[in-house]
Amino acid sequence: MTQLAIANEDVATLETAPTHYVEGHGIRFAYRRLGPATGTPLVLLQHFSGNIDAWDPAVVNALATNRPVIAFDNAGVGRSTGQTPDNIAAMARDAVAFINLLGVSEVDLLGFSLGGCVAQQIAAEHERLVRKLILVGTAPKGGEEHLLAVLQQAFSQTDAPDPRLPLFFTNSSASRLSGLAFLKRTQVRKNDRDIDNGSAVTDPQAKALITWCATPDPDHAILRAIRQPTLVVSGSHDTMLPANNAYAMSRELSNAQLVLYPDSGHGALFQHHEIFVSHVRTFLDAPPSVA
Amino acid sequence: MTQLAIANEDVATLETAPTHYVEGHGIRFAYRRLGPATGTPLVLLQHFSGNIDAWDPAVVNALATNRPVIAFDNAGVGRSTGQTPDNIAAMARDAVAFINLLGVSEVDLLGFSLGGCVAQQIAAEHERLVRKLILVGTAPKGGEEHLLAVLQQAFSQTDAPDPRLPLFFTNSSASRLSGLAFLKRTQVRKNDRDIDNGSAVTDPQAKALITWCATPDPDHAILRAIRQPTLVVSGSHDTMLPANNAYAMSRELSNAQLVLYPDSGHGALFQHHEIFVSHVRTFLDAPPSVA
Repeated sequence: MTQLAIANEDVATLETAPTHYVEGHGIRFAYRRLGPATGTPLVLLQHFSGNIDAWDPAVVNALATNRPVIAFDNAGVGRSTGQTPDNIAAMARDAVAFINLLGVSEVDLLGFSLGGCVAQQIAAEHERLVRKLILVGTAPKGGEEHLLAVLQQAFSQTDAPDPRLPLFFTNSSASRLSGLAFLKRTQVRKNDRDIDNGSAVTDPQAKALITWCATPDPDHAILRAIRQPTLVVSGSHDTMLPANNAYAMSRELSNAQLVLYPDSGHGALFQHHEIFVSHVRTFLDAPPSVA
Repeated sequence: MTQLAIANEDVATLETAPTHYVEGHGIRFAYRRLGPATGTPLVLLQHFSGNIDAWDPAVVNALATNRPVIAFDNAGVGRSTGQTPDNIAAMARDAVAFINLLGVSEVDLLGFSLGGCVAQQIAAEHERLVRKLILVGTAPKGGEEHLLAVLQQAFSQTDAPDPRLPLFFTNSSASRLSGLAFLKRTQVRKNDRDIDNGSAVTDPQAKALITWCATPDPDHAILRAIRQPTLVVSGSHDTMLPANNAYAMSRELSNAQLVLYPDSGHGALFQHHEIFVSHVRTFLDAPPSVA
């Protein structure tokens, strides 16, 4: 029975995996675990306002074919208890507490947008915990953001089926079509869907992200403290956190590969999901640099 | 006998393949052909001063495992007859003449450095001939180059076993070690090696490359004429044609993916050959964009 349960877990998808809980640090964290039982887990750090079911199953399931992948709600988000902090440093502490509760000693991190800021903070402070780092659609401390203006414009488009369509994709027909396909993929799970907690999450998260970008870091102290091999990814036409953040980060990090995708916005990883998964695998599977 | 010959050709490597010749356009072109008999051929356009044997077998042989790959000497270079032109447009005409002589109607192009300038010119002028474009360590028309200064410095390092070590690799131990491994790979072929023609090639090639970069193209007419999906690749610390050329090209091209590799110079594709080959395959194998 236990073996069967493990076997089922192994072939679980983001849409079918049960939501698990782990408690400590004053928080009950909700998470889903996909992929094989062994290997360095890839922990996903989610974007502003997103919960576990905001991840693209096409990305998460493909990555989980050959490595453990863990999607979770940080404090206060979705089904996790606790309060969403209004700063990146506290979010990083909560995420590290979650990883420690899982009992793993080494992880790879994939941080998207707000999650990318949290991932930078964790990697800079926990050299031994984080093996490799993937930063997608994000900004360095002191980076460029147009969050409020772009959010306002997106939410004014009342004819859009979902604000993520104008927020994550460009106006080209190819990008819009891939956006609709993405939305459809995120809606497949019907049972035990994660929940949204509204402004109790988005207010402090917006403050955290805007403060992160508004706080100068002229010496790039955080980027320079990151020693892990890093893959930096951006869409060519990200309107919220522009691609020049990614280029600038790749110049300051000591060991960064940069990938920019064409005709794509904040959701480039979902639009170009097959190529993105291939790039992530190539990056994570490469032997550690001998530098 | 014919079948056997074809079979041998299929498993030929850059180090073992016979050098073939094809004549027309007033030039006898030398080339080697690797990989399967069918599929869109990938034609390689070589860097300043390089001949067929200056390609990295690790890159060429790996790319040829699932597609035809053709390395050739353009007019005047190596064993090809004719005169090396002193401008990119004429080099592009010669290369197109060679491709036409092969009797193929569609190719992918991989242009490295000077070869990347030639590849841009061809792709801009021959939309139907070129399916996909790969630009490595190169510059747009009007781009930034430090060719003469860097060459002078490299050739003054008389203790270097080969000028390509300081030209193509960084000063880190990891980069230098990979540079030595690259040099060793290029020296495996002993029989029927390609030849160098000295200043009869390098003088006009240097003039062509420097003129290309010194000629302003404020409206990016060439980049904007390129409609093919393009992969732009650069080393993070290319001293001759800096990485900001690659970033700028990816911003102006209509359908470009950008990849920058860490701790690497002009020879990033040789230093990071396994990851580069993976990225090229992912790019070439992707279905054409529906944009």
